[in-house]
Amino acid sequence: MRDLSVASEPDVDGKRGVTVWLTGLPSSGKSTIARALEKRLLDDGERVEVLDGDAVRAHLTRDLGFSREDRDENVRRIGFVAHLLSRNGVVVLCPVIAPYRAARDEVRALHDPGRFVEVYVSTPVGVCSDRDVKGLYAEQKAGNLSGLTGVDDPYEPPLEPDVLVPTHNQSLEESVETVWRALHD
Amino acid sequence: MRDLSVASEPDVDGKRGVTVWLTGLPSSGKSTIARALEKRLLDDGERVEVLDGDAVRAHLTRDLGFSREDRDENVRRIGFVAHLLSRNGVVVLCPVIAPYRAARDEVRALHDPGRFVEVYVSTPVGVCSDRDVKGLYAEQKAGNLSGLTGVDDPYEPPLEPDVLVPTHNQSLEESVETVWRALHD
Repeated sequence: MRDLSVASEPDVDGKRGVTVWLTGLPSSGKSTIARALEKRLLDDGERVEVLDGDAVRAHLTRDLGFSREDRDENVRRIGFVAHLLSRNGVVVLCPVIAPYRAARDEVRALHDPGRFVEVYVSTPVGVCSDRDVKGLYAEQKAGNLSGLTGVDDPYEPPLEPDVLVPTHNQSLEESVETVWRALHD
Repeated sequence: MRDLSVASEPDVDGKRGVTVWLTGLPSSGKSTIARALEKRLLDDGERVEVLDGDAVRAHLTRDLGFSREDRDENVRRIGFVAHLLSRNGVVVLCPVIAPYRAARDEVRALHDPGRFVEVYVSTPVGVCSDRDVKGLYAEQKAGNLSGLTGVDDPYEPPLEPDVLVPTHNQSLEESVETVWRALHD
């Protein structure tokens, strides 16, 4: 695990800015954790923004599809915005698949040390497929969709995530607690 | 002039977040004013970001050219990022031509009332062409470039700008003071 201590040092006006990137397969639980964590951080008095695909599509990424190039560009744009916000004292939660390691590392490199926290939501594909929140796994199985991350499109898991969240082995509350502690220890 | 009083009300943590969009022709003085204003606001203890074309191109807009559609998309992306930053207490300066009124109004509509300040840098095209900071007017005259805003591409000036800055009639210091006062009155 990397040293996250910088992220827990308050900025000038008492706010800790940090980008928390939740990477994992579709239906792994990224957005659910992000929304619950957002609530807790708002209760703490933090400034919080959640940048998920739906939130940014209309304004930032509507030209992008699902090629590797477009997926990387999606990560790059969201990562840049997260960088700007986090250096201004905002806790930015990005529940975004970000399947390619190089693109995630590029976003990390934009940030000052400790300002980028990579959370690997490590739910196995079988569990994700059973949950199938958006019906994507069923669509893929039925042959109506291709390029589903983790099934017939690549997913490169983090080799050294800052935080590991195995949602198949713990409750939502425990998952949120795990990430929250990593930001505060 | 619209009532800008909301912009001068401090947020919870004492920071005033606002987007200041400096629109005007190439070489009208937008970036020069933005940089000088940035310095003054930093001296005031504000959080400041300057989002100009060069700052965002690599991370946010590198796919975009100079068609009306692309120019509008450029304004839309920068405007969205400015909106996120300004609602988190940042003073965001956008020295961006933004030639079309509808795109600027779309960005204004994203913001809460008073959080978007449109500054019209009204330097006439003859003065801009004489300054020609980036050599664009000369290139256009020589026939090496087309689609230059205000010459052979449209520029729709604001009908009711929040702040008017005639750089041909006043010094840089006066221009900066004009905008600064509009943010603080």
